[in-house]
Amino acid sequence: MAEIIAKRMSQIQPFYVMNILAKAKAMEAQGHDIVHLEIGEPDFVTAKPIVDAGIHSLNAGLTHYTPAVGLASLREAIAEFYHTTYQVSINPEQVIVTPGSSGALQLLLSILINPGDKVLLTDPGYPCNRHFVRLLEGEAVNVKVDATTNYQLTPALIKQYWDAKTRALLIASPSNPTGAMLSGDELQSLISQVNKHQGVMIVDEIYHGLCYGKKAHSALEYSDDVFVVNSFSKYFGMTGWRVGWIISPEAYIVELDKLAQNLFLATSTTSQYGAIEAFSPATMNILEDRRCQFQQRRNFLLKALKNLGFGVPVDPDGAFYIYCNCEKFTDDSFLFCQKILEETGVAITPGKDFGIHNASKHLRFAYTTSIENMEKGIERLAKFLKH
Amino acid sequence: MAEIIAKRMSQIQPFYVMNILAKAKAMEAQGHDIVHLEIGEPDFVTAKPIVDAGIHSLNAGLTHYTPAVGLASLREAIAEFYHTTYQVSINPEQVIVTPGSSGALQLLLSILINPGDKVLLTDPGYPCNRHFVRLLEGEAVNVKVDATTNYQLTPALIKQYWDAKTRALLIASPSNPTGAMLSGDELQSLISQVNKHQGVMIVDEIYHGLCYGKKAHSALEYSDDVFVVNSFSKYFGMTGWRVGWIISPEAYIVELDKLAQNLFLATSTTSQYGAIEAFSPATMNILEDRRCQFQQRRNFLLKALKNLGFGVPVDPDGAFYIYCNCEKFTDDSFLFCQKILEETGVAITPGKDFGIHNASKHLRFAYTTSIENMEKGIERLAKFLKH
Repeated sequence: MAEIIAKRMSQIQPFYVMNILAKAKAMEAQGHDIVHLEIGEPDFVTAKPIVDAGIHSLNAGLTHYTPAVGLASLREAIAEFYHTTYQVSINPEQVIVTPGSSGALQLLLSILINPGDKVLLTDPGYPCNRHFVRLLEGEAVNVKVDATTNYQLTPALIKQYWDAKTRALLIASPSNPTGAMLSGDELQSLISQVNKHQGVMIVDEIYHGLCYGKKAHSALEYSDDVFVVNSFSKYFGMTGWRVGWIISPEAYIVELDKLAQNLFLATSTTSQYGAIEAFSPATMNILEDRRCQFQQRRNFLLKALKNLGFGVPVDPDGAFYIYCNCEKFTDDSFLFCQKILEETGVAITPGKDFGIHNASKHLRFAYTTSIENMEKGIERLAKFLKH
Repeated sequence: MAEIIAKRMSQIQPFYVMNILAKAKAMEAQGHDIVHLEIGEPDFVTAKPIVDAGIHSLNAGLTHYTPAVGLASLREAIAEFYHTTYQVSINPEQVIVTPGSSGALQLLLSILINPGDKVLLTDPGYPCNRHFVRLLEGEAVNVKVDATTNYQLTPALIKQYWDAKTRALLIASPSNPTGAMLSGDELQSLISQVNKHQGVMIVDEIYHGLCYGKKAHSALEYSDDVFVVNSFSKYFGMTGWRVGWIISPEAYIVELDKLAQNLFLATSTTSQYGAIEAFSPATMNILEDRRCQFQQRRNFLLKALKNLGFGVPVDPDGAFYIYCNCEKFTDDSFLFCQKILEETGVAITPGKDFGIHNASKHLRFAYTTSIENMEKGIERLAKFLKH
């Protein structure tokens, strides 16, 4: 058999952090103690009411396919969640349940993007987004952003980068890697600008709920003519369950259903039954408690990193990441990450996982581990940086 | 927001059977008794040892992401399964666990197919395959097959249809909708022919295990330079769990891992822990008993449909389908299905779900329900056809 690899694969990067993670695991296997500050996944086990609902569904023999767009009861629960959380009215038909927000983003871009169409993204930003666009033979336009705009796009930047081939804007609030959030006014101004260009607006809200001070606004508070992507992975702590969703304008529901049938058949049934329980008061109490713990961790790590001499261009409003400038110490953050891991056993994500703009001067720390553990990591980093 | 739909969507069809299913459900809601002979999903609940393993993993707090290519223990269990079932030696690294075989087929074609590249498929065949190719801006070449070649491709057909843009052949044995199987010799001759063209060979083996007489041979018995796709949905009865896999030549593992990270992040964790138990002796006993039940159902339905006057171009060797010629009764099988449903409450899948070649003269019956239930359906069909 001839060895044939499609051209797109040379432009689709792996997560570089997987390299760090593999090395960290190999070191752990050799008996080294590793402090994981690289992992974009809450350390908490999924809340018990959700786990119990999953078990209950399995015991009840609910092991068959669900409809491609998800269980009706889950779609209703998600619609109700928008009502209680954002006071917006969503028709459950607008809710498309997907295998994680990865499935959501892929499904959505697949029904929207023709070869050659452009999608505006931020750099730094979540790396898979540009790869989804590349998969479809579209072109991801990575707009450089920095602290001067809170690492978010602005109407002026949209205007500057939008051209005749641009079809859509994809933004995230709170964002990965910076945790920077858009205010309601800012969201509204971005929606207006995209409307001026007759483009499509996609808002990634997967870190909603994990906010520390300001309230996160949903784009749906300002328009019912936007796509919103969300997930049960982050705030709801269901990473391994692989359930996300899209809120779609009604005009696109038929196309999304049609393609979901083809791409996924359906999302895991057990996971969907678990997810219904994610909105129960019992679960919500647990999640609020965890959010408070994340806030304490954030405050600890933010102060500690600044004390060590790292630059923090913007204090994060949400998610569980701190994006740091490390140019005081290195001009190659990828090598720096590897050296830190080898010499101290502290694992960090290099900036190049989030784009190319100033990537070699930046790192991402995740506070997805206990303060006690982070204290140990900070101590080791202090020693390392003093050399 | 402007309404923008990508061009590919006009060439991606829904499952037409969803139309039938929706109408059937609406009739059921009105109190009608429906006999479902359309559903491509075993009626059995997932075997208890698998369910218990899923529950056990949830109770043990195993709710985090797994590696993108799957749990090491599951990959080892799948590799071992090839050793015991087909006496072939697979390196567990060659096993890529995916969200169902849908995920497997999409992942695989994405690393192989450039825009404009052609993939040879059978018509009739599984409809999503041509849609996966279309998604990537490739061209699905639907080769007409009929009873003269057992609804499978032959070296002569491959030679006839292969041109400079053809990259891959994708076949299924046993096939959906016909249940027709390739012998070992036939598999080997197809592999040789594809090698002559320096193409890529992809074999869908998702109905393996559901065979009634002849033994199903894996393409891996004849070459280690082919891609095999399989799933826990059909023989293993885990539809709602959404777990499939690819056996890949070693040269492609890195690319598959890289893209799986981007497309899926990972397959559902609970589902993977359940799947490990699919190969246990306790599960295998249950599955063998169910296979025998499928065989009895097949024998019943095959005889009954022939008695009713349907043509059965090939007696199925495997899967749980019978592909029927209905031209004695109609020249529009889609309308015929709708009429049968409305007048008798029997739901059947129209031929057009599997391609265009003679589709309007064919139907697919699934024996995924009890003989008692099928008897009721056959009685109603007999009455309907006598009018």
